[in-house]
Amino acid sequence: MHKVEDIKVEEDLLAANRELALLNRELLDANKVVAIEVSGAIGSGKTTLIELAAQNLKEYRIAAVAGDVVASLDARRFDKLGIPTIALNTGKECHLDAHLVSHALEKLPLDELDIIFIENVGNLICPADFDLGAHSRVVVVSVTEGDDIVAKHPAIFRRANLVVINKVDIAAYVEADPHKMEEDARKINPSLEVIQVSARKGYNIDRWLNFIARTVQNKR
Amino acid sequence: MHKVEDIKVEEDLLAANRELALLNRELLDANKVVAIEVSGAIGSGKTTLIELAAQNLKEYRIAAVAGDVVASLDARRFDKLGIPTIALNTGKECHLDAHLVSHALEKLPLDELDIIFIENVGNLICPADFDLGAHSRVVVVSVTEGDDIVAKHPAIFRRANLVVINKVDIAAYVEADPHKMEEDARKINPSLEVIQVSARKGYNIDRWLNFIARTVQNKR
Repeated sequence: MHKVEDIKVEEDLLAANRELALLNRELLDANKVVAIEVSGAIGSGKTTLIELAAQNLKEYRIAAVAGDVVASLDARRFDKLGIPTIALNTGKECHLDAHLVSHALEKLPLDELDIIFIENVGNLICPADFDLGAHSRVVVVSVTEGDDIVAKHPAIFRRANLVVINKVDIAAYVEADPHKMEEDARKINPSLEVIQVSARKGYNIDRWLNFIARTVQNKR
Repeated sequence: MHKVEDIKVEEDLLAANRELALLNRELLDANKVVAIEVSGAIGSGKTTLIELAAQNLKEYRIAAVAGDVVASLDARRFDKLGIPTIALNTGKECHLDAHLVSHALEKLPLDELDIIFIENVGNLICPADFDLGAHSRVVVVSVTEGDDIVAKHPAIFRRANLVVINKVDIAAYVEADPHKMEEDARKINPSLEVIQVSARKGYNIDRWLNFIARTVQNKR
């Protein structure tokens, strides 16, 4: 299973992906669109956080790209909000790649958009290595995943700009310490911004919205 | 990213894995050891369920193999219980494979064991295709992952023997319907056994222990 050829294929694949990611970013820049990648485990709250952004940031023209292995359940949730939505089915792949995202960008009306949220496939392992061409990378974790979740997956936090620790309202029920999660994230990446929220209760959602607005303003 | 060569590599890899899985199973059978694979997303409760089995089924000699991408945090939890434990670090791979598991089997005292739990890497996508040589495959999901989690990941449920729906005590807090999850699982695989538990509260844990005992008895 761990043959030299496999490693070679992976290196070629990652190099090709990096080039395509650069092209995606150039295309976005040319159209003055900011892309924000949102990764995180299954059920961490990625879709809900993007929904909240679309509902509350009406001053921006927002679209969503939703990666899923099989169904298009998340894409349907975005569709209901009336924002342009592209569903990307990855088949058996556990992450989006720059090539798949380029097809989504072809289908979106880039000159009529300000922000594209790219929701990655739900896990903390595979998306770490694949640059999609987004300007900012957000990782969502929830206290229900256990407060050792960050320490267990350092790679994805190393390349992130923001960590959202979700469901802090039920931290006591699941006996998790969100402050430990925050400390673990800062140990891995000291420049990481960390916010604790409850997407369901609306707690600290203003900080999430503020991060998005700042990201857009920094790009202009 | 989706070149013919990549697909060829994957087919070769899966065929090689199947052969190694058969060898693992033969080795286990020769030693009268039953292996139970436990897959599930991050934080679903895989480690806790295996801990509960080790604590409550003292009539069996139990060992654990724990797959993790980086740290060995789960393996340390098993170690504390005083059972033989092998940590398998997969590096960047999002699943165990039969080759890695064969190395773990080499290190375990097979003739002194009745059950080996093999805890896979935490996600519902990658482990689906890789037979490890276990006799029974358990998938753990929790209500905090959202009650569309089963419908979103059919592949892993198709090849499972048991689905454990965990954290049903907090289903109302996270607005999830465990009965929908159960129905979705049965739609995908009608012969699937499904149990709803709360590992933290001990609810229905007797059914989980009973499944393990039955699996061992059926193999004898």
